[in-house]
Amino acid sequence: MNTTQSDPPRKRGRPRNLEPSQEYRDRLENIVRVAADVFQAHGYEAGSLDDVAAAMGLRKASLYYYVKRKSDLLRLVFERAITVALTEVETLAHLANPRERLAALIRHQALLVTRDPALFAVFFDQRAGLEHADLADVGHKEHLYLRQFILAVEAAMADGSIPPGDPRLVANAIIGMTSWSYKWFDARRDSPEAFADTCVALVLR
Amino acid sequence: MNTTQSDPPRKRGRPRNLEPSQEYRDRLENIVRVAADVFQAHGYEAGSLDDVAAAMGLRKASLYYYVKRKSDLLRLVFERAITVALTEVETLAHLANPRERLAALIRHQALLVTRDPALFAVFFDQRAGLEHADLADVGHKEHLYLRQFILAVEAAMADGSIPPGDPRLVANAIIGMTSWSYKWFDARRDSPEAFADTCVALVLR
Repeated sequence: MNTTQSDPPRKRGRPRNLEPSQEYRDRLENIVRVAADVFQAHGYEAGSLDDVAAAMGLRKASLYYYVKRKSDLLRLVFERAITVALTEVETLAHLANPRERLAALIRHQALLVTRDPALFAVFFDQRAGLEHADLADVGHKEHLYLRQFILAVEAAMADGSIPPGDPRLVANAIIGMTSWSYKWFDARRDSPEAFADTCVALVLR
Repeated sequence: MNTTQSDPPRKRGRPRNLEPSQEYRDRLENIVRVAADVFQAHGYEAGSLDDVAAAMGLRKASLYYYVKRKSDLLRLVFERAITVALTEVETLAHLANPRERLAALIRHQALLVTRDPALFAVFFDQRAGLEHADLADVGHKEHLYLRQFILAVEAAMADGSIPPGDPRLVANAIIGMTSWSYKWFDARRDSPEAFADTCVALVLR
């Protein structure tokens, strides 16, 4: 990444036409993780790029190499949360057995949130800090996420795995059962796997 | 409430040694309801006593008759939410039939949140604004609330109404299923009763 006298002048930051290096991606992922912790601890308004740099032992100039504004960082935190969530749900959607599919979705969602409560505390509670276009993008992806749960619930109702009802209400109840864990789950005391098993056993008898 | 020349001097506000009048209590309840709306719409930090007074068509001086500081208003919002919730749960705890008792608790919690999502949005998300002693008081009452759910879950496990498991995890799953509704429930589209029925049917087969 070093520039020499003979390089053409360019803006700071990573070159636009190159794939980011593995080192770059690892560092950025680490920044996003620390940003989630900072925003969760202080709130988005009170948290700052300085806090993130300090928590990583970076100079602020080094952080600027990756992100220019605090709102970039919030967008990256949201992107990480919804991308991880949605990618896995869309893979699980291919499971043919309705009972197995719904069980897999419940387990996925329970593990997702309990393994990274700080990330999801920001995702669920700090939405007011997002720029308008980013908010719309998150809303769209959440809609796709809910849609996969509704389809899985419909299939599980059709094969008698769960009682009949309004699939949208049932899907929201299931998402709530698991999402709410960011409010109370304590990794020092509770096991993500035990909680995932509990939720699956409660919904699928 | 009018004072005359012959009254002894006293601080403004309602007399300390008298029961508040029905009118006073009604007005205060209305203030708390509007404060919940204001804090939910703007957040606690950004919301102000001026916003609450304006939303009620009151002069700020009239509002001061009831509350002196914004943190009083937040405390009253929290007190209202947890008192309504806990009083009903402690009444339902006397139901002898475990299945009926758990169904009643689930229905209570689902209706509570979906009938007043603004109040519970503040209760669940604006805790950082509470003074230390008020926070401890809310935490204590929430513990009592969770305790009633755990006892009801234990009884429902013992009589086979729900699958065996860790009662604390199951109780938190059930509370999450219902509480989460403050994030998505839309009273223009969804019925609190239909959602309560959905949650009961999902947990108690």
